[in-house]
Amino acid sequence: MPSSNVTRQLGQVSRQERADLLGHRGAVIWLTGLSGSGKSTLAYALERRLVAAHHAAYVLDGDNLRHGLCADLGFSPADREENIRRVGRAAALFADAGVLVIAAFISPYQQGREQARAMAGPDQFIEVYLDVPLAVCEQRDPKGLYQKARAGLIRDFTGLSAPYEIPTAPDLTLDTEANDVSSCVDVVIDRLTRGGFLRSETESRGSPP
Amino acid sequence: MPSSNVTRQLGQVSRQERADLLGHRGAVIWLTGLSGSGKSTLAYALERRLVAAHHAAYVLDGDNLRHGLCADLGFSPADREENIRRVGRAAALFADAGVLVIAAFISPYQQGREQARAMAGPDQFIEVYLDVPLAVCEQRDPKGLYQKARAGLIRDFTGLSAPYEIPTAPDLTLDTEANDVSSCVDVVIDRLTRGGFLRSETESRGSPP
Repeated sequence: MPSSNVTRQLGQVSRQERADLLGHRGAVIWLTGLSGSGKSTLAYALERRLVAAHHAAYVLDGDNLRHGLCADLGFSPADREENIRRVGRAAALFADAGVLVIAAFISPYQQGREQARAMAGPDQFIEVYLDVPLAVCEQRDPKGLYQKARAGLIRDFTGLSAPYEIPTAPDLTLDTEANDVSSCVDVVIDRLTRGGFLRSETESRGSPP
Repeated sequence: MPSSNVTRQLGQVSRQERADLLGHRGAVIWLTGLSGSGKSTLAYALERRLVAAHHAAYVLDGDNLRHGLCADLGFSPADREENIRRVGRAAALFADAGVLVIAAFISPYQQGREQARAMAGPDQFIEVYLDVPLAVCEQRDPKGLYQKARAGLIRDFTGLSAPYEIPTAPDLTLDTEANDVSSCVDVVIDRLTRGGFLRSETESRGSPP
């Protein structure tokens, strides 16, 4: 074919084609909750379960974003807003790529979560609220942050000196105090299957044996 | 298990586990070249071929980044530098997620490309230089940009009024004038296979029939 025409052959893979071939639809699974509510634990357990089933799944969290894509941002209100904007955009790109992306951020503001939902598209965004009492989170205090915040070493700490706006209409609410991680993963997987993001386990990937 | 221990169960999926389960290793395939050199055409053709083979592949280009993750950036030197930093970081995240991400950007500076390579890790970065004479690119002028630049409507246009630093040691050099798109895709696929990013076609995905 004439090389001068190469620019005419553009054509993105459609969302449906991608889903058919990869065996799952891309989605943003957005975990929100206080520090210590179990977001990271659930995120990594869910990722492990999904990848074990041959699905492309990936966790976005402070560890891989604050040191990279958002390394130039601090914790001022404007920087926090820009941070959640970039996280939302990155998550939306992953979902567009067909990845089941699990975003684990405190994301205390309703507006930020709504912005992330809008970026991904409401049909591929699942908001999961980890509903755990502050007292329980503070008792767990896995990173010692509550202790530091109580000692005045951290300002604007969500739940103590900064607000956490409880989600008004999350797609799922999970209590990680009453349920173990595996059960919580089951609930999310079930939601993904019912939502058409995952094929039910009895269906094959559609490829010949 | 006691819920107070849930934070101890963190564990990211290792790169090797992910590759074994998904059937490919994540990589950044970085296409660089003048406007009109065929980056987008090659990128989308490569994506289509990879997804058709059930691989998670995805194109990052100006279309999905300049309007989203980098929407706040203009074209000043500082903004261009920040743009390539974010693109490099986003691409590295995708590769870490096990995706074969195809980045299609003019990326005229050696330093920017080296930065992107460092972000992804040199062992999962493949630099592909689309080596097409300026005159050919200008004749193709798929977006009418050369014409606008010649008319003085675009300043700092790479190849005309802004430099393009030819890659000194690209992993692949492709001539999209002498070869059609399909042949160029073949060359990249072959490189991915030889590099251990894709299993050779005679190998199965490792899942039972």
